[in-house]
Amino acid sequence: MSNTITSQNKAAVIGTGVIGNGWITRLLAYGYEVTAFDPAEGAEARTKEQIDLAWKSMEQAGLDSRADKNKLTFADSIEKAVEGAVLVQENVPERTDLKQKVLEEIDRCAPEKAMIGSSTSGIIPSVLQENLARPERFFVSHPFNPVYLLPLVELVGGEKTDREVLKKAEKFFRSIGMKPLIIEKEVEGHVADRLMEALWREALHLVNDGVATTREIDDAITYGAGLRWAQLGPFMTFHLAGGDAGMRHMLDQFGPALKLPWTKLEAPDLTEDLKEKVITGCENQAGSLSVAEIASKRNEFLVKLKDLVEEYRV
Amino acid sequence: MSNTITSQNKAAVIGTGVIGNGWITRLLAYGYEVTAFDPAEGAEARTKEQIDLAWKSMEQAGLDSRADKNKLTFADSIEKAVEGAVLVQENVPERTDLKQKVLEEIDRCAPEKAMIGSSTSGIIPSVLQENLARPERFFVSHPFNPVYLLPLVELVGGEKTDREVLKKAEKFFRSIGMKPLIIEKEVEGHVADRLMEALWREALHLVNDGVATTREIDDAITYGAGLRWAQLGPFMTFHLAGGDAGMRHMLDQFGPALKLPWTKLEAPDLTEDLKEKVITGCENQAGSLSVAEIASKRNEFLVKLKDLVEEYRV
Repeated sequence: MSNTITSQNKAAVIGTGVIGNGWITRLLAYGYEVTAFDPAEGAEARTKEQIDLAWKSMEQAGLDSRADKNKLTFADSIEKAVEGAVLVQENVPERTDLKQKVLEEIDRCAPEKAMIGSSTSGIIPSVLQENLARPERFFVSHPFNPVYLLPLVELVGGEKTDREVLKKAEKFFRSIGMKPLIIEKEVEGHVADRLMEALWREALHLVNDGVATTREIDDAITYGAGLRWAQLGPFMTFHLAGGDAGMRHMLDQFGPALKLPWTKLEAPDLTEDLKEKVITGCENQAGSLSVAEIASKRNEFLVKLKDLVEEYRV
Repeated sequence: MSNTITSQNKAAVIGTGVIGNGWITRLLAYGYEVTAFDPAEGAEARTKEQIDLAWKSMEQAGLDSRADKNKLTFADSIEKAVEGAVLVQENVPERTDLKQKVLEEIDRCAPEKAMIGSSTSGIIPSVLQENLARPERFFVSHPFNPVYLLPLVELVGGEKTDREVLKKAEKFFRSIGMKPLIIEKEVEGHVADRLMEALWREALHLVNDGVATTREIDDAITYGAGLRWAQLGPFMTFHLAGGDAGMRHMLDQFGPALKLPWTKLEAPDLTEDLKEKVITGCENQAGSLSVAEIASKRNEFLVKLKDLVEEYRV
């Protein structure tokens, strides 16, 4: 790992849940100093525990020469946290009013040249930047769990975002090992989560209708499409399904099936019964393994898989 | 690789497109003798070319001691092809009337104890077995491209299918290196394709609405969820997204988002314009690489990835 930071090597992370902690871990691994803020009791201890859990994977993936997991400070206010930061990344719960309020405070206190990113998975940036004094340096930078290993980050500017800031952000995220995807059109859920959400709704329907259990659905993905999607996305996968003529033949052959009633068209009601099926299904699959233990296996796996994908990506 | 074939080690493959050829390759690699039938001109030459392309991957994955890619014969009729076969696998184009007609002929000619499987991706088995004289030995055995490397096979019985035959089929497919998923309820598209279809419809909408290109959507999957789905399916992935409380916390936190208007609810019209966007998008992504060249990269990748998944699967 290496990055292109010169003088400015401090970032601020506001909100330290799973996503905030993921950002902190990635930033530390790439040699940044990080100041975090989270008003919840015990936040600092939980963050350090999460970093410890993830750090082995970061070492396996290769640390920046300046990386030091102790370069983390918890501040007792947003104002102190954002001091001197080149990037302030917001990760508070997914409520528009709360995010707006926190972003206004970040905007008031952050250094003039700081970039301000929000990890929101669903809210469009034009809404979040409505009341900012300097909205031009604000954007959505939506990462994916685990943030310290998965390279994807969706970058979305709002109506008032300066396109030069987006370019600077793209360069920044690339410098910390990410694959930024600049999305030109604001839609709720951006791109990746809309795709996942579509599959997720269908999965819930199949469970709800008693067609398959959560384990069977996970197997149906893992032993099939999942193996392909790690290397090729859905379009290139279908490009290979149509023989030598690729997608052109595939659309002629399977296009009509789009109109068949194959998938349920509305999201199912999340009844108590459906919730229990989904929850106990997952708990059965996990067996005696805790979430942390599965995550640790996943991390080892992803380190190796990422190298493979890098070698074979088309 | 090893399997449990004793005396019966012959299989028949009817219809030799991409899927039929995939079955032939897998069966040959596991030491079977295969007789194929396809009325199209040049079918045999195309099949041999496809096997040659795939064989290197099969060698890397490890061949059965009896494996010989020359143990393939093309017959000039269904009657001759099915002679002595333990399994007859049907892979003709996805039209109900055509499949019914071909299956009736297979049923008339196949040995009494032969299992008869259909590769249909969408049609339910009760419809396909309607007019068979011995429907009890018929089932859907739906594989995924590339059939010789992807382990998933969906097994679905119809109303008249003998459950003992399904168990025998499960054992058979396991013996040729597959992960059979027995689906108890007949629904069009079975399970895996319904999931993929949901994501695919949403992907087409995003392209249609100008939100993202095919490359961007492929990147959004490959650098994000795809890396996770190769190891963990959608449910276990979300089990890790909710912190230590797993899916229980996740559904409380993100359940309400299901009702947000995040995904398009109907399939878009496959207009000429949308088709062109999708096709040229894929062709641009492929660049100078032919479908065969990408497939060969994919194969090398999958051989390595499958070992990784085996090691880390939860």
